[in-house]
Amino acid sequence: MDKAYTASLNELIEQFSKLPGIGKKTAERLAMHILKVGSDDAMALARAIRDVKMKVKQCKICHNLAEADTCEICADERRDKSIICVVEQARDVITLEKTGLCKWVYHVLGGHIAPLDGVDASDLTIDSLVRRIRSGEVKELVMATNPNMEGDGTALYISSILKNTNVKITRLARGLPTGTELEYASGNIIAEAIIGRQKLE
Amino acid sequence: MDKAYTASLNELIEQFSKLPGIGKKTAERLAMHILKVGSDDAMALARAIRDVKMKVKQCKICHNLAEADTCEICADERRDKSIICVVEQARDVITLEKTGLCKWVYHVLGGHIAPLDGVDASDLTIDSLVRRIRSGEVKELVMATNPNMEGDGTALYISSILKNTNVKITRLARGLPTGTELEYASGNIIAEAIIGRQKLE
Repeated sequence: MDKAYTASLNELIEQFSKLPGIGKKTAERLAMHILKVGSDDAMALARAIRDVKMKVKQCKICHNLAEADTCEICADERRDKSIICVVEQARDVITLEKTGLCKWVYHVLGGHIAPLDGVDASDLTIDSLVRRIRSGEVKELVMATNPNMEGDGTALYISSILKNTNVKITRLARGLPTGTELEYASGNIIAEAIIGRQKLE
Repeated sequence: MDKAYTASLNELIEQFSKLPGIGKKTAERLAMHILKVGSDDAMALARAIRDVKMKVKQCKICHNLAEADTCEICADERRDKSIICVVEQARDVITLEKTGLCKWVYHVLGGHIAPLDGVDASDLTIDSLVRRIRSGEVKELVMATNPNMEGDGTALYISSILKNTNVKITRLARGLPTGTELEYASGNIIAEAIIGRQKLE
Protein backbone atom coordinates (compact mmCIF):
# COMPACT_ATOMS: atom_id res chain seq x y z
CA MET A 1 0.00 0.00 0.00
CA ASP A 2 1.58 3.15 -1.29
CA LYS A 3 0.68 6.42 0.41
CA ALA A 4 1.33 8.46 -2.73
CA TYR A 5 -1.56 6.73 -4.52
CA THR A 6 -5.14 7.37 -3.45
CA ALA A 7 -7.10 4.60 -1.73
CA SER A 8 -8.99 3.50 -4.83
CA LEU A 9 -5.81 3.48 -6.93
CA ASN A 10 -4.14 1.29 -4.32
CA GLU A 11 -7.12 -1.04 -4.40
CA LEU A 12 -6.98 -1.26 -8.20
CA ILE A 13 -3.23 -1.92 -8.13
CA GLU A 14 -3.82 -4.72 -5.64
CA GLN A 15 -6.60 -6.24 -7.75
CA PHE A 16 -4.49 -6.11 -10.91
CA SER A 17 -1.56 -7.73 -9.03
CA LYS A 18 -3.72 -10.77 -8.34
CA LEU A 19 -3.90 -11.58 -12.05
CA PRO A 20 -1.43 -14.24 -13.24
CA GLY A 21 1.85 -12.84 -14.53
CA ILE A 22 1.07 -9.29 -13.39
CA GLY A 23 3.62 -7.97 -10.89
CA LYS A 24 3.49 -4.80 -8.79
CA LYS A 25 5.13 -2.59 -11.45
CA THR A 26 2.81 -3.76 -14.23
CA ALA A 27 -0.21 -3.41 -11.94
CA GLU A 28 0.80 0.21 -11.26
CA ARG A 29 1.17 0.89 -14.97
CA LEU A 30 -2.22 -0.65 -15.71
CA ALA A 31 -3.91 1.32 -12.91
CA MET A 32 -2.43 4.60 -14.16
CA HIS A 33 -3.60 3.67 -17.65
CA ILE A 34 -7.15 3.15 -16.36
CA LEU A 35 -6.95 6.54 -14.66
CA LYS A 36 -5.89 8.15 -17.92
CA VAL A 37 -8.22 6.54 -20.48
CA GLY A 38 -11.74 7.73 -21.15
CA SER A 39 -14.43 6.63 -18.77
CA ASP A 40 -16.10 4.59 -21.54
CA ASP A 41 -13.05 2.39 -22.10
CA ALA A 42 -12.57 1.76 -18.39
CA MET A 43 -16.24 0.96 -17.86
CA ALA A 44 -16.18 -1.38 -20.87
CA LEU A 45 -13.44 -3.41 -19.18
CA ALA A 46 -15.27 -3.46 -15.84
CA ARG A 47 -18.47 -4.53 -17.57
CA ALA A 48 -16.69 -7.22 -19.63
CA ILE A 49 -15.33 -8.77 -16.43
CA ARG A 50 -18.78 -8.76 -14.84
CA ASP A 51 -20.44 -10.16 -17.98
CA VAL A 52 -18.06 -13.10 -18.21
CA LYS A 53 -18.86 -14.08 -14.63
CA MET A 54 -22.58 -13.65 -15.13
CA LYS A 55 -23.16 -15.01 -18.63
CA VAL A 56 -20.70 -17.85 -19.18
CA LYS A 57 -21.99 -21.24 -18.05
CA GLN A 58 -21.66 -24.89 -19.11
CA CYS A 59 -23.17 -26.39 -22.26
CA LYS A 60 -25.85 -28.88 -21.21
CA ILE A 61 -24.66 -31.41 -23.78
CA CYS A 62 -20.85 -31.27 -23.72
CA HIS A 63 -19.99 -29.08 -20.68
CA ASN A 64 -18.01 -26.67 -22.85
CA LEU A 65 -18.27 -22.92 -22.19
CA ALA A 66 -21.63 -21.57 -23.33
CA GLU A 67 -23.85 -18.54 -22.98
CA ALA A 68 -27.01 -20.34 -24.07
CA ASP A 69 -28.16 -23.81 -22.98
CA THR A 70 -25.87 -25.37 -25.55
CA CYS A 71 -22.49 -24.15 -26.77
CA GLU A 72 -21.92 -22.85 -30.30
CA ILE A 73 -20.26 -26.08 -31.35
CA CYS A 74 -23.11 -28.34 -30.20
CA ALA A 75 -25.58 -25.91 -31.77
CA ASP A 76 -23.72 -25.96 -35.11
CA GLU A 77 -25.67 -28.03 -37.67
CA ARG A 78 -22.58 -28.68 -39.79
CA ARG A 79 -20.71 -30.51 -37.02
CA ASP A 80 -20.36 -34.28 -37.23
CA LYS A 81 -22.21 -35.42 -34.10
CA SER A 82 -21.08 -39.03 -34.62
CA ILE A 83 -17.56 -38.22 -33.43
CA ILE A 84 -17.01 -36.94 -29.88
CA CYS A 85 -13.60 -35.61 -28.88
CA VAL A 86 -13.04 -36.00 -25.13
CA VAL A 87 -10.95 -33.27 -23.45
CA GLU A 88 -10.11 -32.38 -19.87
CA GLN A 89 -10.82 -28.63 -19.95
CA ALA A 90 -12.77 -26.08 -22.00
CA ARG A 91 -9.40 -24.49 -22.70
CA ASP A 92 -8.45 -27.63 -24.66
CA VAL A 93 -11.47 -27.19 -26.94
CA ILE A 94 -10.15 -23.75 -27.87
CA THR A 95 -6.67 -25.15 -28.53
CA LEU A 96 -8.03 -27.90 -30.78
CA GLU A 97 -10.45 -25.58 -32.60
CA LYS A 98 -7.61 -23.23 -33.49
CA THR A 99 -6.16 -25.90 -35.78
CA GLY A 100 -9.29 -25.57 -37.95
CA LEU A 101 -9.17 -29.36 -38.50
CA CYS A 102 -11.97 -30.44 -36.18
CA LYS A 103 -15.45 -31.04 -37.53
CA TRP A 104 -16.44 -33.19 -34.56
CA VAL A 105 -18.19 -32.24 -31.30
CA TYR A 106 -16.65 -32.33 -27.81
CA HIS A 107 -17.09 -33.60 -24.32
CA VAL A 108 -15.40 -31.64 -21.55
CA LEU A 109 -14.62 -33.86 -18.56
CA GLY A 110 -13.82 -31.04 -16.16
CA GLY A 111 -10.43 -32.47 -15.16
CA HIS A 112 -8.77 -35.87 -14.87
CA ILE A 113 -9.02 -38.72 -12.41
CA ALA A 114 -6.49 -38.10 -9.61
CA PRO A 115 -7.26 -40.13 -6.48
CA LEU A 116 -4.39 -38.49 -4.54
CA ASP A 117 -5.99 -35.08 -5.11
CA GLY A 118 -9.40 -36.46 -4.17
CA VAL A 119 -10.74 -36.38 -7.74
CA ASP A 120 -12.44 -39.62 -8.74
CA ALA A 121 -14.48 -40.55 -11.79
CA SER A 122 -17.74 -39.34 -10.25
CA ASP A 123 -16.34 -35.79 -10.04
CA LEU A 124 -16.01 -35.68 -13.83
CA THR A 125 -18.74 -35.57 -16.45
CA ILE A 126 -18.25 -39.24 -17.38
CA ASP A 127 -21.87 -40.22 -16.59
CA SER A 128 -23.12 -37.61 -18.99
CA LEU A 129 -20.66 -38.89 -21.65
CA VAL A 130 -21.95 -42.46 -21.22
CA ARG A 131 -25.51 -41.16 -21.63
CA ARG A 132 -24.56 -39.40 -24.87
CA ILE A 133 -23.07 -42.62 -26.21
CA ARG A 134 -26.12 -44.70 -25.19
CA SER A 135 -28.23 -42.34 -27.32
CA GLY A 136 -26.82 -44.33 -30.25
CA GLU A 137 -25.69 -41.57 -32.57
CA VAL A 138 -22.00 -41.77 -31.65
CA LYS A 139 -19.59 -43.86 -33.76
CA GLU A 140 -16.17 -42.69 -32.57
CA LEU A 141 -14.71 -41.29 -29.38
CA VAL A 142 -11.38 -39.42 -29.82
CA MET A 143 -9.49 -39.25 -26.55
CA ALA A 144 -7.68 -35.91 -26.34
CA THR A 145 -6.90 -35.91 -22.63
CA ASN A 146 -3.43 -34.63 -21.76
CA PRO A 147 -0.57 -36.92 -22.84
CA ASN A 148 0.56 -37.57 -19.27
CA MET A 149 -0.10 -40.07 -16.51
CA GLU A 150 -3.39 -38.57 -15.31
CA GLY A 151 -4.72 -37.92 -18.80
CA ASP A 152 -3.83 -41.40 -20.03
CA GLY A 153 -5.29 -42.98 -16.90
CA THR A 154 -8.55 -41.09 -17.39
CA ALA A 155 -8.73 -42.11 -21.06
CA LEU A 156 -8.11 -45.76 -20.14
CA TYR A 157 -10.80 -45.66 -17.46
CA ILE A 158 -13.35 -44.24 -19.91
CA SER A 159 -12.44 -46.77 -22.58
CA SER A 160 -12.79 -49.59 -20.00
CA ILE A 161 -16.38 -48.66 -19.07
CA LEU A 162 -17.30 -48.40 -22.76
CA LYS A 163 -15.80 -51.68 -23.92
CA ASN A 164 -19.21 -53.34 -24.29
CA THR A 165 -20.46 -50.68 -26.69
CA ASN A 166 -19.83 -50.53 -30.45
CA VAL A 167 -18.13 -47.15 -30.28
CA LYS A 168 -14.65 -47.01 -31.80
CA ILE A 169 -12.23 -45.42 -29.34
CA THR A 170 -9.12 -43.63 -30.64
CA ARG A 171 -6.64 -41.21 -29.17
CA LEU A 172 -4.53 -38.36 -30.60
CA ALA A 173 -1.29 -39.71 -32.07
CA ARG A 174 1.85 -39.84 -29.91
CA GLY A 175 5.28 -39.30 -31.35
CA LEU A 176 7.97 -36.75 -31.96
CA PRO A 177 6.77 -33.14 -31.85
CA THR A 178 7.28 -31.60 -35.32
CA GLY A 179 9.92 -28.89 -35.43
CA THR A 180 12.11 -30.30 -32.65
CA GLU A 181 15.32 -32.32 -32.77
CA LEU A 182 15.66 -36.04 -32.06
CA GLU A 183 18.67 -35.27 -29.84
CA TYR A 184 16.51 -33.44 -27.29
CA ALA A 185 13.53 -35.82 -27.20
CA SER A 186 13.25 -37.86 -23.98
CA GLY A 187 13.43 -41.65 -23.96
CA ASN A 188 9.72 -42.31 -23.63
CA ILE A 189 8.82 -39.87 -26.41
CA ILE A 190 11.20 -41.77 -28.72
CA ALA A 191 9.87 -45.11 -27.49
CA GLU A 192 6.29 -44.07 -28.36
CA ALA A 193 7.45 -42.79 -31.74
CA ILE A 194 9.11 -46.14 -32.48
CA ILE A 195 6.15 -48.24 -31.35
CA GLY A 196 3.64 -46.08 -33.18
CA ARG A 197 5.70 -45.57 -36.34
CA GLN A 198 3.58 -44.55 -39.30
CA LYS A 199 3.75 -45.46 -42.97
CA LEU A 200 5.54 -42.78 -44.98
CA GLU A 201 3.18 -41.95 -47.82
CA MET B 1 -12.74 -12.76 -32.69
CA ASP B 2 -12.39 -16.43 -31.88
CA LYS B 3 -15.41 -18.63 -32.45
CA ALA B 4 -14.29 -21.16 -29.85
CA TYR B 5 -14.75 -18.54 -27.09
CA THR B 6 -18.19 -17.32 -26.13
CA ALA B 7 -19.22 -13.76 -27.01
CA SER B 8 -18.57 -12.33 -23.56
CA LEU B 9 -15.17 -14.04 -23.34
CA ASN B 10 -14.23 -12.56 -26.71
CA GLU B 11 -15.32 -9.15 -25.46
CA LEU B 12 -13.23 -9.52 -22.29
CA ILE B 13 -10.19 -10.65 -24.32
CA GLU B 14 -10.59 -7.59 -26.51
CA GLN B 15 -10.89 -5.25 -23.53
CA PHE B 16 -7.82 -6.76 -21.86
CA SER B 17 -5.86 -6.44 -25.14
CA LYS B 18 -6.40 -2.68 -25.05
CA LEU B 19 -4.31 -2.38 -21.89
CA PRO B 20 -0.69 -1.33 -22.46
CA GLY B 21 1.74 -4.24 -22.78
CA ILE B 22 -1.02 -6.86 -22.92
CA GLY B 23 -1.02 -8.85 -26.16
CA LYS B 24 -3.61 -11.29 -27.46
CA LYS B 25 -2.08 -14.34 -25.72
CA THR B 26 -1.88 -12.61 -22.34
CA ALA B 27 -5.39 -11.24 -22.74
CA GLU B 28 -6.65 -14.79 -23.35
CA ARG B 29 -4.83 -16.04 -20.28
CA LEU B 30 -6.26 -13.22 -18.15
CA ALA B 31 -9.80 -13.81 -19.46
CA MET B 32 -9.60 -17.53 -18.68
CA HIS B 33 -8.28 -16.63 -15.23
CA ILE B 34 -11.29 -14.36 -14.64
CA LEU B 35 -13.56 -17.22 -15.74
CA LYS B 36 -11.88 -19.56 -13.25
CA VAL B 37 -11.57 -17.41 -10.11
CA GLY B 38 -14.38 -16.95 -7.63
CA SER B 39 -17.03 -14.41 -8.48
CA ASP B 40 -15.94 -12.23 -5.54
CA ASP B 41 -12.41 -11.77 -6.88
CA ALA B 42 -13.62 -10.95 -10.38
CA MET B 43 -16.22 -8.49 -9.11
CA ALA B 44 -13.59 -6.86 -6.86
CA LEU B 45 -11.49 -6.10 -9.95
CA ALA B 46 -14.49 -4.78 -11.91
CA ARG B 47 -15.47 -2.60 -8.95
CA ALA B 48 -11.91 -1.33 -8.44
CA ILE B 49 -11.79 -0.17 -12.08
CA ARG B 50 -15.12 1.63 -11.72
CA ASP B 51 -14.13 3.19 -8.39
CA VAL B 52 -10.92 4.66 -9.77
CA LYS B 53 -12.83 6.35 -12.56
CA MET B 54 -15.52 7.63 -10.20
CA LYS B 55 -13.55 8.61 -7.10
CA VAL B 56 -10.17 9.90 -8.21
CA LYS B 57 -10.12 13.63 -8.95
CA GLN B 58 -7.69 16.55 -8.65
CA CYS B 59 -6.55 18.12 -5.40
CA LYS B 60 -7.93 21.69 -5.24
CA ILE B 61 -4.61 23.02 -3.94
CA CYS B 62 -1.89 21.20 -5.88
CA HIS B 63 -3.77 19.29 -8.65
CA ASN B 64 -2.31 15.96 -7.47
CA LEU B 65 -4.55 12.86 -7.48
CA ALA B 66 -7.08 13.06 -4.66
CA GLU B 67 -10.28 11.43 -3.49
CA ALA B 68 -11.25 14.31 -1.19
CA ASP B 69 -11.07 18.04 -1.97
CA THR B 70 -7.38 18.03 -1.09
CA CYS B 71 -4.85 15.22 -1.60
CA GLU B 72 -3.29 13.33 1.29
CA ILE B 73 -0.06 15.28 0.99
CA CYS B 74 -1.70 18.74 1.15
CA ALA B 75 -3.86 17.49 4.02
CA ASP B 76 -0.82 16.23 5.95
CA GLU B 77 -0.06 18.56 8.90
CA ARG B 78 3.58 17.46 9.09
CA ARG B 79 4.43 18.61 5.57
CA ASP B 80 6.53 21.75 5.13
CA LYS B 81 4.14 24.04 3.24
CA SER B 82 6.88 26.62 2.68
CA ILE B 83 8.52 24.45 0.01
CA ILE B 84 6.61 23.59 -3.17
CA CYS B 85 8.03 21.02 -5.56
CA VAL B 86 6.76 21.62 -9.11
CA VAL B 87 6.23 18.51 -11.27
CA GLU B 88 4.67 17.84 -14.65
CA GLN B 89 2.47 14.85 -13.80
CA ALA B 90 0.85 13.21 -10.77
CA ARG B 91 2.97 10.16 -11.65
CA ASP B 92 6.09 12.23 -10.82
CA VAL B 93 4.75 12.89 -7.30
CA ILE B 94 4.62 9.14 -6.77
CA THR B 95 8.17 8.70 -8.09
CA LEU B 96 9.54 11.42 -5.80
CA GLU B 97 7.56 10.23 -2.76
CA LYS B 98 9.02 6.73 -3.13
CA THR B 99 12.45 8.12 -2.18
CA GLY B 100 11.06 8.94 1.27
CA LEU B 101 13.15 12.15 1.23
CA CYS B 102 10.43 14.69 0.50
CA LYS B 103 8.81 16.62 3.30
CA TRP B 104 7.59 19.36 1.00
CA VAL B 105 4.27 19.79 -0.80
CA TYR B 106 3.73 19.65 -4.58
CA HIS B 107 2.27 21.49 -7.49
CA VAL B 108 1.24 19.37 -10.51
CA LEU B 109 1.37 21.39 -13.72
CA GLY B 110 -0.52 18.87 -15.83
CA GLY B 111 2.17 18.76 -18.55
CA HIS B 112 4.81 21.05 -20.02
CA ILE B 113 4.74 24.03 -22.34
CA ALA B 114 4.94 22.73 -25.93
CA PRO B 115 3.76 25.30 -28.48
CA LEU B 116 4.15 22.83 -31.36
CA ASP B 117 1.70 20.46 -29.68
CA GLY B 118 -0.65 23.36 -28.94
CA VAL B 119 0.08 23.39 -25.20
CA ASP B 120 0.80 26.87 -23.88
CA ALA B 121 1.22 28.19 -20.35
CA SER B 122 -2.51 28.81 -19.91
CA ASP B 123 -3.21 25.07 -20.37
CA LEU B 124 -1.12 24.29 -17.29
CA THR B 125 -1.91 25.07 -13.65
CA ILE B 126 0.58 27.94 -13.53
CA ASP B 127 -2.04 30.57 -12.53
CA SER B 128 -2.96 28.48 -9.53
CA LEU B 129 0.75 28.12 -8.63
CA VAL B 130 1.21 31.90 -8.79
CA ARG B 131 -1.81 32.32 -6.49
CA ARG B 132 -0.32 29.86 -3.98
CA ILE B 133 2.93 31.84 -3.97
CA ARG B 134 1.12 35.20 -3.57
CA SER B 135 -0.47 33.79 -0.41
CA GLY B 136 2.95 34.49 1.16
CA GLU B 137 3.65 31.25 2.94
CA VAL B 138 6.02 29.85 0.27
CA LYS B 139 9.81 30.29 0.63
CA GLU B 140 11.19 27.88 -1.96
CA LEU B 141 10.07 26.45 -5.26
CA VAL B 142 11.88 23.24 -6.30
CA MET B 143 11.59 22.68 -10.04
CA ALA B 144 11.28 18.96 -10.73
CA THR B 145 10.04 19.13 -14.31
CA ASN B 146 11.59 16.55 -16.64
CA PRO B 147 15.31 17.12 -17.40
CA ASN B 148 14.67 17.67 -21.11
CA MET B 149 13.98 20.57 -23.42
CA GLU B 150 10.26 20.91 -22.65
CA GLY B 151 10.69 20.44 -18.90
CA ASP B 152 13.56 22.93 -18.70
CA GLY B 153 11.65 25.43 -20.84
CA THR B 154 8.62 25.18 -18.59
CA ALA B 155 10.77 25.64 -15.47
CA LEU B 156 12.46 28.71 -17.00
CA TYR B 157 9.10 30.22 -17.94
CA ILE B 158 7.77 29.78 -14.40
CA SER B 159 10.91 31.21 -12.86
CA SER B 160 10.68 34.23 -15.23
CA ILE B 161 7.15 35.15 -14.16
CA LEU B 162 8.16 34.83 -10.49
CA LYS B 163 11.38 36.82 -10.61
CA ASN B 164 9.82 39.80 -8.79
CA THR B 165 8.84 37.69 -5.79
CA ASN B 166 11.05 36.75 -2.87
CA VAL B 167 10.69 33.04 -3.46
CA LYS B 168 13.94 31.10 -3.87
CA ILE B 169 13.79 28.96 -7.01
CA THR B 170 15.89 25.79 -7.23
CA ARG B 171 15.89 22.74 -9.44
CA LEU B 172 16.84 19.09 -8.94
CA ALA B 173 20.59 18.59 -9.44
CA ARG B 174 21.90 17.60 -12.86
CA GLY B 175 24.92 15.36 -13.29
CA LEU B 176 26.02 11.80 -13.80
CA PRO B 177 23.41 9.21 -12.86
CA THR B 178 24.76 7.11 -9.97
CA GLY B 179 25.49 3.51 -10.88
CA THR B 180 26.41 4.15 -14.52
CA GLU B 181 29.81 4.48 -16.22
CA LEU B 182 31.43 7.69 -17.44
CA GLU B 183 32.23 5.96 -20.74
CA TYR B 184 28.54 5.72 -21.65
CA ALA B 185 27.42 9.18 -20.54
CA SER B 186 26.56 11.56 -23.39
CA GLY B 187 28.46 14.82 -23.95
CA ASN B 188 25.83 17.15 -22.48
CA ILE B 189 25.41 15.00 -19.36
CA ILE B 190 29.17 15.24 -18.76
CA ALA B 191 29.12 18.96 -19.55
CA GLU B 192 26.42 19.55 -16.92
CA ALA B 193 28.34 17.40 -14.43
CA ILE B 194 31.50 19.48 -14.98
CA ILE B 195 29.73 22.84 -14.75
CA GLY B 196 27.76 21.82 -11.69
CA ARG B 197 30.58 19.96 -9.94
CA GLN B 198 29.98 19.58 -6.23
CA LYS B 199 32.31 19.78 -3.22
CA LEU B 200 33.38 16.30 -2.11
CA GLU B 201 32.59 16.23 1.62
